[in-house]
Amino acid sequence: MEIDVFTTLNGIPDEAIANKTIIVVDVLRATTTITAALAAGCLEVIPVLTPEEAIEMRERLGDERVLLGGERNALKIPGFDLGNSPLEYTAEVVGGKRVIITTTNGTRAIRRAAAGHQVFLGAMLNAAAVARVAAGEAADITIICAGTRDRFSLEDFLTAGLQVEELAGQGEFTLRDGALAARDYYLCHRADPAAAMKASSHGQLLAELGLSADMDFCARMGTTAVVPQYSGGIIKKAGLS
Amino acid sequence: MEIDVFTTLNGIPDEAIANKTIIVVDVLRATTTITAALAAGCLEVIPVLTPEEAIEMRERLGDERVLLGGERNALKIPGFDLGNSPLEYTAEVVGGKRVIITTTNGTRAIRRAAAGHQVFLGAMLNAAAVARVAAGEAADITIICAGTRDRFSLEDFLTAGLQVEELAGQGEFTLRDGALAARDYYLCHRADPAAAMKASSHGQLLAELGLSADMDFCARMGTTAVVPQYSGGIIKKAGLS
Repeated sequence: MEIDVFTTLNGIPDEAIANKTIIVVDVLRATTTITAALAAGCLEVIPVLTPEEAIEMRERLGDERVLLGGERNALKIPGFDLGNSPLEYTAEVVGGKRVIITTTNGTRAIRRAAAGHQVFLGAMLNAAAVARVAAGEAADITIICAGTRDRFSLEDFLTAGLQVEELAGQGEFTLRDGALAARDYYLCHRADPAAAMKASSHGQLLAELGLSADMDFCARMGTTAVVPQYSGGIIKKAGLS
Repeated sequence: MEIDVFTTLNGIPDEAIANKTIIVVDVLRATTTITAALAAGCLEVIPVLTPEEAIEMRERLGDERVLLGGERNALKIPGFDLGNSPLEYTAEVVGGKRVIITTTNGTRAIRRAAAGHQVFLGAMLNAAAVARVAAGEAADITIICAGTRDRFSLEDFLTAGLQVEELAGQGEFTLRDGALAARDYYLCHRADPAAAMKASSHGQLLAELGLSADMDFCARMGTTAVVPQYSGGIIKKAGLS
């Protein structure tokens, strides 16, 4: 079995998706936030592409437990209940709730991955847990970095590298070039991954917006065993269905 | 001015090409070989997408000085004069000649870059020279790694990193995430870039095919000041027109 990493969403060949175990990474902040939400007792997260789609879906569902979350330009969408900060998704706010979420890059990446054999969401905080679950699927693994508007995101590549390192500890994988380079990159920064993340464009944007606490949260490793799994348009904890 | 790096050809947004100075990297082996050919006195190199297109073009040109070069699956194409090894493109063979070339990834990348402001070809052997010429263009710089069939190529990312490092020595550039990560990656391997290149999938394939001498040639840095420039469908030394 093999592992490969793609640094942007566009242009991934179909054969790297079909029948593969997919791990989607958008560490700043969508996949971190969704993981945090499920860890806080959120029942499910529904990723959609646009704010309009989110509002329509809430009306269609007609469920009082539904909250709307997400961002555009890193800020909360007007009229939405929640932004895209993992720190907002506490047990008090999202426990027992369903969240419809739309973000600039992450939700697009999750939807693109839908044709995969299984689709998991990875971040720093759950990379070890994702590795255990994904390695158990007995399929090739494709790690998709959401990137930023079809460009390379340093923080996603770094997280993909951690993910490869954790997977390599779970079994015998052949690492294709993307996986080799991402792991190497992570190992170069293993002493202080948070510093590398802060140097990224998106890290700098979050700092300018006063969201450094989000970044600190996103850079913590191995703090939860929650593995979000996307199936049938809905993200739940792996193991629940 | 800024620099960004794209790790595969597919999915590059148009705004990263239009009005940018483009540096195309396919270090194993197309951009190395084309650089070596021009350094050996080849008059011009015409990149085409298919062997059929190469044969048709030779007939259309009706010029005895035309040679056909290139590869499929890393091997010389039946009926062609030359493969894709830089070691074949000597002064005796290509001096005063025109070469029509087709390779699996490199020539596609060069053609994709055609909409750029200026298009240069970069490799390990001419990265310093490319940096001097490209930095003089006073435009944002997009480095395109040809990759391998729409997947990440470790050796191209490494070379892109060297290219960013050389460019950073030529002026004040803002490094976008792709450029930051590639440079970082190169710096992690600066003690022995050839070893990193040999660990790549394509490096291993070349070794299996008995082409390790090619790889050694491709991993040498700063051995020529020749900068191939693509314009109007033809690659010539920058400065000549």
